[in-house]
Amino acid sequence: MAARDRIIRASVLHGAKDLRIEERSISDPSPQEVQVAVRATGLCGSDLHYYNHYRNGDIVVREPMSLGHESAGVVTAVGSEVSNLKVGDKIALEVGLPCGNCERCTEGRYNICKGMNFRSSAKAFPHAQGTLQGRINHPAAWCHKLPEQVSLDLGAILEPLSVGIHATRRAQLAAGSTVLVFGAGAVGLLVAAMAKISGAGTVIIADIDAGRVEFATQNSFAHSGFIVPMKRGETVEEQLTIAQEIAAEIGKLKKSTDEPTGEMDAVFECTGVPSCLQASIYATRPGGKVMLIGMGTPIQTLPISAAALREVDLVGVFRYANTYSTGIEVVSKRGPGYPNFAKIITHRFKGLDNAVDAFNMAGKTKDESGELVLKVVLEIDEEGRSKL
Amino acid sequence: MAARDRIIRASVLHGAKDLRIEERSISDPSPQEVQVAVRATGLCGSDLHYYNHYRNGDIVVREPMSLGHESAGVVTAVGSEVSNLKVGDKIALEVGLPCGNCERCTEGRYNICKGMNFRSSAKAFPHAQGTLQGRINHPAAWCHKLPEQVSLDLGAILEPLSVGIHATRRAQLAAGSTVLVFGAGAVGLLVAAMAKISGAGTVIIADIDAGRVEFATQNSFAHSGFIVPMKRGETVEEQLTIAQEIAAEIGKLKKSTDEPTGEMDAVFECTGVPSCLQASIYATRPGGKVMLIGMGTPIQTLPISAAALREVDLVGVFRYANTYSTGIEVVSKRGPGYPNFAKIITHRFKGLDNAVDAFNMAGKTKDESGELVLKVVLEIDEEGRSKL
Amino acid sequence: MAARDRIIRASVLHGAKDLRIEERSISDPSPQEVQVAVRATGLCGSDLHYYNHYRNGDIVVREPMSLGHESAGVVTAVGSEVSNLKVGDKIALEVGLPCGNCERCTEGRYNICKGMNFRSSAKAFPHAQGTLQGRINHPAAWCHKLPEQVSLDLGAILEPLSVGIHATRRAQLAAGSTVLVFGAGAVGLLVAAMAKISGAGTVIIADIDAGRVEFATQNSFAHSGFIVPMKRGETVEEQLTIAQEIAAEIGKLKKSTDEPTGEMDAVFECTGVPSCLQASIYATRPGGKVMLIGMGTPIQTLPISAAALREVDLVGVFRYANTYSTGIEVVSKRGPGYPNFAKIITHRFKGLDNAVDAFNMAGKTKDESGELVLKVVLEIDEEGRSKL
Amino acid sequence: MAARDRIIRASVLHGAKDLRIEERSISDPSPQEVQVAVRATGLCGSDLHYYNHYRNGDIVVREPMSLGHESAGVVTAVGSEVSNLKVGDKIALEVGLPCGNCERCTEGRYNICKGMNFRSSAKAFPHAQGTLQGRINHPAAWCHKLPEQVSLDLGAILEPLSVGIHATRRAQLAAGSTVLVFGAGAVGLLVAAMAKISGAGTVIIADIDAGRVEFATQNSFAHSGFIVPMKRGETVEEQLTIAQEIAAEIGKLKKSTDEPTGEMDAVFECTGVPSCLQASIYATRPGGKVMLIGMGTPIQTLPISAAALREVDLVGVFRYANTYSTGIEVVSKRGPGYPNFAKIITHRFKGLDNAVDAFNMAGKTKDESGELVLKVVLEIDEEGRSKL
Repeated sequence: MAARDRIIRASVLHGAKDLRIEERSISDPSPQEVQVAVRATGLCGSDLHYYNHYRNGDIVVREPMSLGHESAGVVTAVGSEVSNLKVGDKIALEVGLPCGNCERCTEGRYNICKGMNFRSSAKAFPHAQGTLQGRINHPAAWCHKLPEQVSLDLGAILEPLSVGIHATRRAQLAAGSTVLVFGAGAVGLLVAAMAKISGAGTVIIADIDAGRVEFATQNSFAHSGFIVPMKRGETVEEQLTIAQEIAAEIGKLKKSTDEPTGEMDAVFECTGVPSCLQASIYATRPGGKVMLIGMGTPIQTLPISAAALREVDLVGVFRYANTYSTGIEVVSKRGPGYPNFAKIITHRFKGLDNAVDAFNMAGKTKDESGELVLKVVLEIDEEGRSKL
Repeated sequence: MAARDRIIRASVLHGAKDLRIEERSISDPSPQEVQVAVRATGLCGSDLHYYNHYRNGDIVVREPMSLGHESAGVVTAVGSEVSNLKVGDKIALEVGLPCGNCERCTEGRYNICKGMNFRSSAKAFPHAQGTLQGRINHPAAWCHKLPEQVSLDLGAILEPLSVGIHATRRAQLAAGSTVLVFGAGAVGLLVAAMAKISGAGTVIIADIDAGRVEFATQNSFAHSGFIVPMKRGETVEEQLTIAQEIAAEIGKLKKSTDEPTGEMDAVFECTGVPSCLQASIYATRPGGKVMLIGMGTPIQTLPISAAALREVDLVGVFRYANTYSTGIEVVSKRGPGYPNFAKIITHRFKGLDNAVDAFNMAGKTKDESGELVLKVVLEIDEEGRSKL
Repeated sequence: MAARDRIIRASVLHGAKDLRIEERSISDPSPQEVQVAVRATGLCGSDLHYYNHYRNGDIVVREPMSLGHESAGVVTAVGSEVSNLKVGDKIALEVGLPCGNCERCTEGRYNICKGMNFRSSAKAFPHAQGTLQGRINHPAAWCHKLPEQVSLDLGAILEPLSVGIHATRRAQLAAGSTVLVFGAGAVGLLVAAMAKISGAGTVIIADIDAGRVEFATQNSFAHSGFIVPMKRGETVEEQLTIAQEIAAEIGKLKKSTDEPTGEMDAVFECTGVPSCLQASIYATRPGGKVMLIGMGTPIQTLPISAAALREVDLVGVFRYANTYSTGIEVVSKRGPGYPNFAKIITHRFKGLDNAVDAFNMAGKTKDESGELVLKVVLEIDEEGRSKL
Repeated sequence: MAARDRIIRASVLHGAKDLRIEERSISDPSPQEVQVAVRATGLCGSDLHYYNHYRNGDIVVREPMSLGHESAGVVTAVGSEVSNLKVGDKIALEVGLPCGNCERCTEGRYNICKGMNFRSSAKAFPHAQGTLQGRINHPAAWCHKLPEQVSLDLGAILEPLSVGIHATRRAQLAAGSTVLVFGAGAVGLLVAAMAKISGAGTVIIADIDAGRVEFATQNSFAHSGFIVPMKRGETVEEQLTIAQEIAAEIGKLKKSTDEPTGEMDAVFECTGVPSCLQASIYATRPGGKVMLIGMGTPIQTLPISAAALREVDLVGVFRYANTYSTGIEVVSKRGPGYPNFAKIITHRFKGLDNAVDAFNMAGKTKDESGELVLKVVLEIDEEGRSKL
């Protein structure tokens, strides 16, 4: 390795909205690692929280940290014991490194490993640095080779798509089932797409923004859409009444039923908004599932008897496990009626130097032209610059 | 059938605390029914609600109704098409009659059938009359023959035991797992017993009453106990802090862990009290389950992120389905270390004429001698009297 | 009911190849039944066995019996207690009537109820008469209303499609999985279609007939095909060697693997041929499933260690349960890339008088023009004639 | 480490029945390893096959190899990165080291990892040396700490007990279920015990040896026993008839049934003998499971339709995954009616020098006094001698 190859450029967060481009040194990859030139990184809501507040909920950043965890790139060096990858391979990074030894890990649920070290999260200390840097060393076992036809941008999408894969797996959808997805942002869209691909016969996506709903149906992420009214209740009683009304409206969308509410086999709640979770419970049929995906208000007031007495289960979805091979299979396909995954990347920025602009865009729901902002991707070359 | 056999005595509720003994006529059993002399009936919390308030939560009684749904008796006549039962057979009544045709019924989850007709519940109209009457016609398919060694009293226990069977099935307990049961009333005890029988290695039962906890461990319903402190918070924040403290205390009971909270593979919440459900969420390990059994406050404020982010699922348990053959198998056994099911019947009253006394006792947690009140059973003869 | 409405024409089997058209009387539907004018009936392999041999495997016909169990029709009369259907409704018949009370029934697996009474099967006595008659009385609960856009022919297809639905459910396919279907007859095609709809990323269909394989891929029943070589071994050793070779060839079809065999997540065996079942075991990955769908040689010599030591489970699939609502959802859809279900009906005959011709055609793999014979449907009017 | 500590004594197999005691050098444990003084090792059927034939089925030994894989010992040194263990800790060794990265590993089914390196198995090359040596270096993550009350002998039993844990998990036994275990050797006994602990209401154990059956019931491994008749058929037809007779006899043992066969919810086949597997299929109820545990004849002739048409699934069980914490919980208990695990160790030998005697004993079913031989354990000190 030449001396100059040991210096990389990184985008490093030093405080709220204090993002600096710095040089960092990088070692050779250890025997089981590869070195990856990060080429495409999607920006996620948690990145945005860190960027804006130097914290994410209860988790406070304690040392300068690179953001970014939805990334794909190209292998530039391989460790001495690595056999499954070679220089030049296109790969997607799976950035959560679990302990590998606890009961959760050995039983295959490594996403809830207590020792999880997840890049660009400040939960563990020292923090696992994020991927917004020119090159990065990463265990080869957690790099997933991309086939020819999958672009690096789509490779970056595999991380949020993994949430959709994990969520639909946990929902154990039967073929032909009717499901509702609350929230038509990037995660909601990808959840809806996976429900559709997994055999759901009717996927209804709901959002307060008509444009997002239209995007979802026009690009085959969902079969139909529902625009959630913007009412808000003052008291819990008012909120629950509104939630019941929303559920009743949605119930009407499924023609084959006499009853106004509670006909969804599963509802995927991707907003974290209490009224949506309340409506999710009401909208689900007896024996169905509400999937808790959106991270929002940590303490919520819920109609818990309406769930328990009808055996509507509230099922947690936290990140993902064992999803990348499925994800690669899924984004490798194309065709009429198939979700157009590439369309979800609505904005691209080039070079770490434009990271601030990228973060600003990611914080919006529409850009200055009134176009939807769904997923913002930062594309960089090995130097972390934009010349590619 | 002699004319006098067509008249029965029944205990009928006409208003709050207005329980009257009346004569009713009874027809011959229809072709697929049997006629059963009800001999033993346990009183349940829902019976008590109806007795005290002429309603149960939102469900208001609209016509005079017999209470009682935990019953066993003896077959006195059989319909023309009944082949599996004969006069003289001891049976336990399964009193919920589902529609049999809906998707929930045909998939085996008849407990959440929307057309369920459940005796002594005022949900459907006309109400399905309860079992507190001398004789009753009931479909033979929903009468479960008791073996010689199972007493009619134990036969009556099969109904609440069914909740325990259904709850442990839904929890999918692994052998050797560590579980917590909140509430050491009759349902909590039977849930704990079933968790133990189903292979849980450590069953901890928690209650605010030290006597109940002691009863549970001394009679082999649970391995160990925990006395829940009687603290109450004013604000949600205080309540959640208390819930976390309780979970932390319980965590200490499992020696093999370094972490104070969140080590239970499953928590069975049988109280319906918000602070217990909050503590249940905190006390459960990542990937574990909280079983919602207790019916209580219908709207609750919950630390939902503490569940979702650790994939602690909230799983509803409503009554039961397909449990009686298992229940009969379970109560047919005895032995050192095995739950002493008979002990759960702490008080017996004889004859419908003493029903009011029985209800009054069922409303207490301790009797006048300071003895625990767990399950109160009303034993009657065919005339609904006490001479047996 | 007019006197003439009480006489129907029926096609009745009196011995091997002795199919007679007879008049039968029909009663009014009982309170929970409807009377259905059968309009379209698909012929199945078991019908053909009965027709050719007056027996099906070990099951011998003991009294004259109508064949036919894949049927749809129109309601012509409703029993007094029927509320979900009315005269004129298009319905598909679910012809297996389970006992409704046994443990299998109440747990939702009514397909393996020991008391199952299945039309056109001679297992129970008196035999449950098949649907090849002008009108038939059938319990309303087992009639499934068809939406406008589903033709009666497609309604008849719901029965074999149900096998595909049941098989894919039991296989618990994950999204993106790779599966193999042995046999591209009607059942194999419908199984493949359901695997595809249920989220399998790669569905490979295998048959000895290149034409069937081509049909499957051209009509979107499968993603790709494999032509099984017609080799046969004399000894078990030779047979197993051939099975391993077939599995190895199929293994090559999935590009992403280095190992030649055992890469299928699931194999659906729809032929009943020993060499195919042997190859199925070899072709499945560790931890995968072989679904036993084809009925063929009842005693087979199998490489059972190759299954057990890799935890390849052999999972039985017998008929179906709770499949019709899903099936109706599935055939209600159309679109590019979606299986073209209508195409599977390759031949239509009209009127019971042409039943013999229909059976003769159903026994062929190609017709006189060299066209594939997949599903033969007999269409009749209420008189059992062909004027419609 | 002193020089003398770098030399250990090992029992090494050089050919069929050519077991030699040799000195081997041992390095310091690597950072994530511990060094363990192996104290107790159970001998297994596969050890015996290697000892007698220098091969195990198709797997041929290609270099001198230590046998032994059911072992417990004491930590004598810890690698620099090991934090969960310290010198002096009693541990059980989990001797199968999976790759950790493949899909099977990450989904929690590491027992069927293709890259599995299992001590004392000659499948991988160079062979992973077995545990019959004075000390051994082993990854700390695969050493399970034993509590005070669990002896090293019982620690050695955890390995075959793990098979029982894995088998009962895969069987998904419901509480109160009725199961049959074919084979009352060490594995069959431990499977039966785990079925009992996991909630099976009736565990019947079957063997051709009355003494083993009696042992099982007297020591609470099973509820009841069945002595399998020693008939053998010449033809497949005769064999299947015998298998049906056996199944019918066993069927009689469950009183509550009218039908003679097919009443077991699950059958655990631990013999590998074809007639037992055939009988297992016949003895299982519709919808039940046959668990394939015994390794025996690799190619078997089976009544596969009798399985498939009743949805009796044949479920493979290969070794185990994630079982040790459960196993430790299980053997930590004692009590009336609880399986007496210690009794299964019927013979103990001391020192590697007596390994040949131990192997000879392990090859017998009864010793010279006519006592049962179930599990033979070789106990050694750090020098591999018998002075402890």
